[in-house]
Formats: sequence, C-alpha cells, structure tokens
Amino acid sequence: MADTLELVSSTCTFGGWHKRYRHRSTATGTTMTFAIYLPPQAQGGSVPVLYWLSGLTCTDENFATKAGAQRVAAELGLALVMPDTSPRGDGVADADGYDLGQGAGFYVNATQAPWAAHYRMYDYVVDELPALVEAHFPVTQQRAISGHSMGGHGALMIALRNPGRYRSVSAFAPIVNPSAVPWGQKAFAAYLGEDRSTWLSYDSCHQLEIAVERLPMLVDQGEQDGFMPEQLQPDVLARVARQHDWPLTLRRQPGYDHSYYFIASFIEDHLRFHAQHLAA
Amino acid sequence: MADTLELVSSTCTFGGWHKRYRHRSTATGTTMTFAIYLPPQAQGGSVPVLYWLSGLTCTDENFATKAGAQRVAAELGLALVMPDTSPRGDGVADADGYDLGQGAGFYVNATQAPWAAHYRMYDYVVDELPALVEAHFPVTQQRAISGHSMGGHGALMIALRNPGRYRSVSAFAPIVNPSAVPWGQKAFAAYLGEDRSTWLSYDSCHQLEIAVERLPMLVDQGEQDGFMPEQLQPDVLARVARQHDWPLTLRRQPGYDHSYYFIASFIEDHLRFHAQHLAA
Repeated sequence: MADTLELVSSTCTFGGWHKRYRHRSTATGTTMTFAIYLPPQAQGGSVPVLYWLSGLTCTDENFATKAGAQRVAAELGLALVMPDTSPRGDGVADADGYDLGQGAGFYVNATQAPWAAHYRMYDYVVDELPALVEAHFPVTQQRAISGHSMGGHGALMIALRNPGRYRSVSAFAPIVNPSAVPWGQKAFAAYLGEDRSTWLSYDSCHQLEIAVERLPMLVDQGEQDGFMPEQLQPDVLARVARQHDWPLTLRRQPGYDHSYYFIASFIEDHLRFHAQHLAA
Repeated sequence: MADTLELVSSTCTFGGWHKRYRHRSTATGTTMTFAIYLPPQAQGGSVPVLYWLSGLTCTDENFATKAGAQRVAAELGLALVMPDTSPRGDGVADADGYDLGQGAGFYVNATQAPWAAHYRMYDYVVDELPALVEAHFPVTQQRAISGHSMGGHGALMIALRNPGRYRSVSAFAPIVNPSAVPWGQKAFAAYLGEDRSTWLSYDSCHQLEIAVERLPMLVDQGEQDGFMPEQLQPDVLARVARQHDWPLTLRRQPGYDHSYYFIASFIEDHLRFHAQHLAA
C-alpha cells in the first residue's frame, strides 16, 4: 500500500493541474500529504521537477496559494512538488511552540525519543517522495530543489549532501547555519540529541565546507527580514562560499521581509535559474 | 477622526508597497480595514486605481495574498485597493452561515433591522473609500473596478449604477442576477426586505438593462465552477448584453473552478484590460 496515492483535489490553474495527494509513507510511518503542479507540457511528455520545501508552520498549501509559482512553471514546463513540513496526526509527537514538532520537521531524521518514531523528513524528501513522484507522474529524473527559511535550510543541506541528485539549488531567507542559531539549536537538540557532532550533517555551512561536487546555488535574502541577524546568518554562508570558491549567488533585497510577499516577488527569478540548469 | 488612517502593516512586494489600514468609517459606523498596493510608479507621481471587491467569507487579505495581482500592477503602474467584504466587530449583526452577515455584505445599503445599523457597504465602496484613498495616496481619479463572485456582483452593479465613475469593469464568476438566485435572494431579503422592487437597484442584469452610458466590461467564468448553474447565471448576463448591444466580453474558461487558482490564472488579462482603458 505504501505506493498508493489518494487524490485529495485537482484544480486547473495556468493551463495545468494542481493536485494534492495523501499516501502512506514508509519513511515517516504516517499518512503524508503533498501537492504537485503539472504544467501544460506534462500532458504531452515528461517534465523536470522542482522540489519546494516550506518553512516553519507551513503545509503544502502556503507555497501553492501564495507564491505565484505555477504561472512561471507553466511557461517553463516545470513540475512543482510541495511536501508537508513534518509528519502529522494524533499519534505523532508534538510540542508547544511553532518551531518544534508538527509543522517543524527541519528535514532531518530524528534519532531521539519521542521524535524518532515518525520525524524522518530527510528520508522522505530525499528518497521516498522523488521515487513516488517519478513512478506516478510524467516527470524526468532532472531535479532541482528550493525552499524558504527552514525549507531553505532543507534545500541547501539536501542538495549539498546528495551530489548529482539535483541540478541546482536555491533558497529564500534560509537558515544556513542551524547549529549556531536558536531555531536550529532547539530543533537539533530535540531531534538529534546533545551530541553536536551529529548536527553538522544537517548544517548547510558545514556541508558546503566539505562538499566534493559543486552545483549552482542562488539565495535571496530580504534586508528587512526581522529574523535575519539572529536566525538566518547569510553572511556566514557568503564567507564559507568565498573561502571555498563556491558558485553562490547571494542577493540582498532592500526593503523585503520574511513573508510570501518576498517570495512571490522573486520566485520567477528562481524558477528561471533552475530551468536554465535543468535544460543544460 | 473619520479620515484618520491607522497603518496596520507595510510590506514590500514587487518593488512597491502593500499597506493595510484601519479607519473609522462614517458609512458603516464601524472600524474598517482595507489594503492598498502602491506600485513603484507611485513613488514618483500619481497612478490610477483598480478597486477589487472580494467574495463571500473574504477579507482584504485573500486577493492580496493569492491572486498574484501586485506583479502585474507593478508593471502597469496601477494601484490596487482592497476593502473588506462587510462591517465587522462585536457590535455588528451577524448570522449563522457564510452567506449572510459578517463577510457577506453584498455591497448594498441595508434598510432592514438588525442590518441597517452598519451594513452600508455600497456607500462605503462607492463614496467613502475612494474619497479617502484619493485624499491620502498618490493616485489619480482614474478608477476601474473588479471583483470575484459576490464581489463580481458588486463590481458590475456599482459600475453600472455610477456612470463616469469608472473607466472599465471586470469580474470573475460574478453573481450577475442576485434577485433570481439563492445567495442573492437570502441576502437581499435580509438586508433589503421582502419588497423585491428594491432588489433591482442592486441587480447587475437589471442595471445593465436600464444603463444609459456604456463602459467596457470583461467577465471570466470557469466552466467547472460548481456554483455556476445555480448561483452565477452568466447566460443571463450574456443574453441581456446581446439584447442591449452592450460591450461585454464574456470568456468561458474550460477546466477552471471558483477558486483563487482561477483568478490567479487570468488576473493579468484583467489588469491589462483595465490599464488599457485607464490610459485611454
């Protein structure tokens, strides 16, 4: 039953179809929901896929309804896949606060109780979901990955840890150095335990330092983002990239905050960036 | 105090500013919230305004976050003004159900208790809000109006009743003949009473029949819209327009439903339509 998809909804937009599915996940041991946007081009052939990882508190719906990405995906012939941000349900551990537990999976495989039972979002996003998508939909194995905030951390970290799996990676206001900031420290202590050496495998700045294979990387950061100095640390990513001569384009956008109004403003640039590398 | 605006939030998007305000309304006798998007061009001069009227259950935020309109408004140099769909608050009458009371003002001036005290959305949208916007923001008196569902009814009806006030009107899935469909009959009976002759002043099909001055009109209707046959009646509007040689462009969009995924897909066409007539 693990590869059975239950269609939740199917909505026409920009000449393509935005579809939501539920399925039983082997990785998390729960029922997971994800969305896929199939552009018009998918009706006549296979299209490459951009995976989008959302931030704290989000489901698959935030990016789907607020980013305006389907318009550009329809033009470029790109499928968009939008997973949830954690396992959910009555039997799934949770915590008070928006930054731990349901809606805050941080794209790691938890090793600590009570989280280890279901919080295996790394395996879900890296392995299970792409296998499912590539088995059920008219898509190629050309993949790109992007995300916002916690999902920006997820996108960068996953792309860096899996050379050859993605053609390009981008992020909006990513948590680039979670080992060193409050959001990441709280989540990693809970999910991974107090041995900080285990945190580094999920830290983009560390992964970039040890990466063996380069891939194009685009990061946008709003300069009026209230989370920037404490939680996001784009300067640290820029420094590590410089030290390692890494192909990072980091753009600082004056006036912009952390919201979907920021993402919507620049998602077209990101999709064109990915389309260019997916076609190369 | 009636013309004092309290800034609720100000967010950079597409190079312009999306701002939400609260103010004490003379028309409704309540505190009203609205949003305005000022495109980059408003920093150096005055720009024309498109008023957007939302549908049942909406606030100013649905269109703002889901339609993707700011992108096109920023390109065209068009301000967007987004009022709420009713008065709100503890002292404001309400009803069970999503289609009457708060979130469902239907853009009329209520005459019946308990609604008459505050439900004066017609006066608010036609007079008070434009006066406020034109006094406080860098905008011209060139106006256009559009809306969705209940707001599509509002846009068509208001444009038809106020010749010369708007250069153009458009709507997505409008309730064109509210006197004859369940949503409109329920609301009009409550707000206006059982004398159906009073309903006709708020019925777009009737107003089109008696209109003395023509204005360009664009309507999009999704063919998979589940509300179409019972509540929306695009065929009636098309028939009246034909009989009166009215400049209506009615587009039926195969596959599309009643949601913001439909609006987002065609909002660019609507904004270009309005910009063309605002510039004429």
